[in-house]
Amino acid sequence: MFNLFSVKGGISTVEGFFCDGVNVGMKTNPANSGDSNIDGDVAFIRSEALCDVSARFTSNKFQAAPIKHYQKYPKDFQTNFVLMNAKNANAMTGAKGIEDIEDIFKKLDNYIPTHNPIMSSTGVIGYRLNQEKITSAFDKFDFNAKNSNKTARAIMTTDKFKKELAFRVELDDGSEFNIAGICKGAGMINPAMATMLCFITTDADIPKDDMEELLSKAVNSSFNKISVDGDTSTNDTILLLSNKLSGAYNKEAFREALNKITFELAMMILKDGEGANKLVAFEVKGAKNSKEAEIASKALSNSLLVKTALFGEDPNWGRIASTIGASGVECDDTTLTIYYDNLLIYSDEQRELDPKREEQAYKIMKNNSFKVICDLGLGNGEFISYGCDLSYEYVKINAEYRT
Amino acid sequence: MFNLFSVKGGISTVEGFFCDGVNVGMKTNPANSGDSNIDGDVAFIRSEALCDVSARFTSNKFQAAPIKHYQKYPKDFQTNFVLMNAKNANAMTGAKGIEDIEDIFKKLDNYIPTHNPIMSSTGVIGYRLNQEKITSAFDKFDFNAKNSNKTARAIMTTDKFKKELAFRVELDDGSEFNIAGICKGAGMINPAMATMLCFITTDADIPKDDMEELLSKAVNSSFNKISVDGDTSTNDTILLLSNKLSGAYNKEAFREALNKITFELAMMILKDGEGANKLVAFEVKGAKNSKEAEIASKALSNSLLVKTALFGEDPNWGRIASTIGASGVECDDTTLTIYYDNLLIYSDEQRELDPKREEQAYKIMKNNSFKVICDLGLGNGEFISYGCDLSYEYVKINAEYRT
Repeated sequence: MFNLFSVKGGISTVEGFFCDGVNVGMKTNPANSGDSNIDGDVAFIRSEALCDVSARFTSNKFQAAPIKHYQKYPKDFQTNFVLMNAKNANAMTGAKGIEDIEDIFKKLDNYIPTHNPIMSSTGVIGYRLNQEKITSAFDKFDFNAKNSNKTARAIMTTDKFKKELAFRVELDDGSEFNIAGICKGAGMINPAMATMLCFITTDADIPKDDMEELLSKAVNSSFNKISVDGDTSTNDTILLLSNKLSGAYNKEAFREALNKITFELAMMILKDGEGANKLVAFEVKGAKNSKEAEIASKALSNSLLVKTALFGEDPNWGRIASTIGASGVECDDTTLTIYYDNLLIYSDEQRELDPKREEQAYKIMKNNSFKVICDLGLGNGEFISYGCDLSYEYVKINAEYRT
Repeated sequence: MFNLFSVKGGISTVEGFFCDGVNVGMKTNPANSGDSNIDGDVAFIRSEALCDVSARFTSNKFQAAPIKHYQKYPKDFQTNFVLMNAKNANAMTGAKGIEDIEDIFKKLDNYIPTHNPIMSSTGVIGYRLNQEKITSAFDKFDFNAKNSNKTARAIMTTDKFKKELAFRVELDDGSEFNIAGICKGAGMINPAMATMLCFITTDADIPKDDMEELLSKAVNSSFNKISVDGDTSTNDTILLLSNKLSGAYNKEAFREALNKITFELAMMILKDGEGANKLVAFEVKGAKNSKEAEIASKALSNSLLVKTALFGEDPNWGRIASTIGASGVECDDTTLTIYYDNLLIYSDEQRELDPKREEQAYKIMKNNSFKVICDLGLGNGEFISYGCDLSYEYVKINAEYRT
């Protein structure tokens, strides 16, 4: 039907898209920031042709100014420009926060023609953007660059590594299209849409309705299934931009490529979870229904006691069971079974962990990645969410962030 | 109307109650347990006269065996004996867990006559009780002791200090009664009933209906308002035992004394919160209704980002605002105001924290205890919950617990 090829180069690989990232010193206190990984703080993505755009934003009621600014555009607007900055979320900044964006875009017009430009910000909440600094980036940008690397690095905050991914998709008829994504995110990550910015570009000739449908499904089975700390930010944004330049499209191929990109980027966020050492899948099945499976699964990926037990590599299934019981879903300790990967560690007949199985469980928990499977034994409800451990490092990062 | 006098001696001060605690080596791995504070692990409370009893238990669906054992007694049963143990929760132990309790009480009959004895356990989930060890305590107990100190210490797990409180209540007619409580709890603490055991004894001549009514209200405004980590255990128990021996009673006086005892014990749990250094009250007012105020307030006391900011003593009100926005309650950033104690740190007109106010906020956060007040400016809903910071020490305690 079609072939997917993973390619290097991130969002630069997509026809007609240009991008660059530069450093203008946005850090509120560069001397103490300690985030030496960050070699940029303002970036852009530009398309030579107008793009359809699909977006998903945070469920946080206090949506940041860039999101409110986006929402002022008419339905089904087209754009050719996205401006991004790190280190200042432009959140809780009121009407002034939106005016700042409009002022910045007025100045941008002196450099390059834009149509309905979009802004996207991440960083500290509660401070006005420094317009002068942001617009100083316009002198530094190469508007014809194809530098996904610098772009992906410029949006990083507490991220330890950049997150980018690109596919070339070959269809049966010999035509091909490209799809690629970058994202940032490491903390404040919650299943109700991770704290993250994600930008996906494509030259596929995809109808707008398909964009909406496929993006919703892709986000639900990727970013909405991960949790670092159960907090949901004011700025979460995922943008899908399509400039149609390849002329090629196949819905199944696009669906698969988009799902791969969003899932892999979500797993990268989790692997980069602040202070996290382990990526754990929490699979709940046999629940009364899928809603209850989701509640129990997300309770596990958000529980501090489960997360610290993962960090301690302690096969303490009692905390798993207790968290399910506390989540409020229907459950019964005589029908419940718990596995770590394929190892049965709890069932009605086999409640205490004998030394041999404890040893085996201990080995599994030493891995960087494994599965916790809880079968409630009651119905057909299933859900998987993904989480990580909670280490000293998480506390350090979040106690020291900002200052 | 009446006078409350705080007295020393804990639950031993109440007429007709006896109690003691001993050490029988219940630790699963004493060499590594590290809990050197704990000088006992099995304890009892006994009354010379039969007691009415009111109880509240965990909302966790996987209730531990002692709770299921309690629930087998007929409604309005009376008792004269409570046996407690630490280091083994007797939870997720199935029918055998209940049989173990029945066997233990059969052996207790050889030592002292009991009527409908109650058991209460705390510790690790998933292991059968060691009957031999528990019953070895019967040889060591002094059944006529009045040793609240040893009793309160025997039920400690990760607690750093024992928690006990006693009042003598003088009524207008010259009659008096006593009421006293002990409890344990430091982690796995959640507003939906803290992970804790709490035992309150009284010789007041209180009608059973009043016991039920006043205990419910007292628990709702104390233990159900605190959070260390948002986890709810399988064993939470609060027992109110009244042997009526004083013959004295006044409803208002009893209400006040009981509320004081439950609130003070709840605050002791929070001060002893695993790794906690600060006790913070999260007061949400101006919410659409009281339910929404409760949701927002509990979201604050449970947020990892808020808790780590408290630990970092960072006056980062953005995390407070973001957490309220993420909680799903109706809110508006133009009507919201945030205070630390009496210091306004956010309002529509005053969004950025100027250096002077930041300095003042910083000073408040250095205190061991302060208030975060969020007025949503929308309605009359109010709620206060109480939380603590999240430190390296919490992670250490919970990564290492059990092993």
